[in-house]
Amino acid sequence: MPPVSPPIPFGDRLAAAVEALGAPLAVGLDPHLPLLPAAIRARFEGLDGAARRAAAAAAVKAWSIDVIDALVGQCAAVKLQAAFYEQLGWAGAQALEASCAHARAKGLLVILDAKRGDIDTTAEAYAAAALDPEGPHGADAVTVSPWMGMDTLEPFLRRCVAHGAGVFALVRTSNPGSGLLQTPGGAALRLAQALHTRGEVDWAGARLSSIGAVVGATIPVDELGPLRAALPRAWFLMPGVGAQGGSLGAARAAARPDGLGVLPVASRSVLFPPAGAPDPGAAWAEAVAERAAAHKRAAAAAWGWG
Amino acid sequence: MPPVSPPIPFGDRLAAAVEALGAPLAVGLDPHLPLLPAAIRARFEGLDGAARRAAAAAAVKAWSIDVIDALVGQCAAVKLQAAFYEQLGWAGAQALEASCAHARAKGLLVILDAKRGDIDTTAEAYAAAALDPEGPHGADAVTVSPWMGMDTLEPFLRRCVAHGAGVFALVRTSNPGSGLLQTPGGAALRLAQALHTRGEVDWAGARLSSIGAVVGATIPVDELGPLRAALPRAWFLMPGVGAQGGSLGAARAAARPDGLGVLPVASRSVLFPPAGAPDPGAAWAEAVAERAAAHKRAAAAAWGWG
Repeated sequence: MPPVSPPIPFGDRLAAAVEALGAPLAVGLDPHLPLLPAAIRARFEGLDGAARRAAAAAAVKAWSIDVIDALVGQCAAVKLQAAFYEQLGWAGAQALEASCAHARAKGLLVILDAKRGDIDTTAEAYAAAALDPEGPHGADAVTVSPWMGMDTLEPFLRRCVAHGAGVFALVRTSNPGSGLLQTPGGAALRLAQALHTRGEVDWAGARLSSIGAVVGATIPVDELGPLRAALPRAWFLMPGVGAQGGSLGAARAAARPDGLGVLPVASRSVLFPPAGAPDPGAAWAEAVAERAAAHKRAAAAAWGWG
Repeated sequence: MPPVSPPIPFGDRLAAAVEALGAPLAVGLDPHLPLLPAAIRARFEGLDGAARRAAAAAAVKAWSIDVIDALVGQCAAVKLQAAFYEQLGWAGAQALEASCAHARAKGLLVILDAKRGDIDTTAEAYAAAALDPEGPHGADAVTVSPWMGMDTLEPFLRRCVAHGAGVFALVRTSNPGSGLLQTPGGAALRLAQALHTRGEVDWAGARLSSIGAVVGATIPVDELGPLRAALPRAWFLMPGVGAQGGSLGAARAAARPDGLGVLPVASRSVLFPPAGAPDPGAAWAEAVAERAAAHKRAAAAAWGWG
């Protein structure tokens, strides 16, 4: 038998996708029901309970597929927010699976934003659910919560090595209460150092590590430097560009000297019209594509990759 | 219209369930596929991919229903481990929903062990998924990860007030790597204090708070005292009694003077025969009931409630 090549590590696959796009950009799929286009909402409004969940899940599935189609060529990855599908029960889980499969088929990297974290065989089950190629989602990467410790990430990391998958651990988020446990010079930095040390075991030869960090785009700029110094080869997944007030300039400042290592995520600012803007009506998917293209151009400009 | 009574808080509902049982005991439903009874495993072994997931989910659903039936009268609550269902995809989600509904119908309190945690509308979606009475799970309580901060628990806490639901926040787990972030005198204690302060806002008049803590049954005994002092009215959900080496004596030591406030969880030591024991064959559900009854007697004895 010919030797089997090891899979290309996720960190390098993401670098290649960003370089091919000419801009660092992921788009988050957050099917927040009240914000969906009117024609989509009409499919479940007025229903209740399980009937509403089933109708909403079918509508969200159709919306997700159309959004993904609109995003091809406009971003390197899509980040699917598990919670919005999960609230629709098993039919929502089915919609999420179909959306992941469709994005993969369209050549987009799939980041499952699930923030899972548990011990032992339970973590193993979550990792299988998110990352196994033959599993329900087959995602390229998943977000994980590191609160229980580095050992709880191991089932995910085994799949990074085996399948070229990636993880993004929650390191420093930008919500008001994050500082209680994610102390800037304390726990967040200690975690960053532990993630770097662990990553070097498996990805010393890669350009970028397959262990990334979720870092809020609106955290104070003076915190970004120490985090980048602690994680010189990590991708920072930075949600909140646009709607949450994070700027591309701040995100760019957290990148490595080669411009890699930061993946800004725009979600609602791509998915939905800004407040007060005219409703695009039936042309909502075209409007998604236009907003994504504008974000791509802005990211390329902020990166000086024009 | 007559005034609507507020729901009985979860903390007090759990106290009543434990007192009615005469012992503090929850049983965890962890459908770890390789450990399931041979007759259940036969329904999916040899299959692959989506076909295996569908067959395994149907088998896990049947097993869960039979386990729940066997547990009636033997425990105050069941703790369903979401990961083991989630790895089976949408069919697994359907099995989890059916299992939650069946346990509720049988009068058992349902704790969804999902360890979810996210910000803002995403946390809102997870809370709706877990706790809304008309939602897919309608659980009585859910485990949550507090790593992102107290504000991220608010959507869950709103449902505690509105529906008499409960949360168990991960405070101190007993896996080898937990000390990296859950520092005993530091973050874990700071979190415990924050949970207590927040709980007093809503449950000052209740016997026990509806904000509980997940505390490993095998953490050092000298850590339990400060946690109990910081959380005098909280339920400690203590997984790992039995299979993970936690003893009921250590759990009892963490209880309040009235004996309430600790809910030991036995999972594999109830669900599956001990290594080397004879296979009960077709009588596996009766064996589950017998092991649960033995755990109940042991808990009552450890509590001096015989």
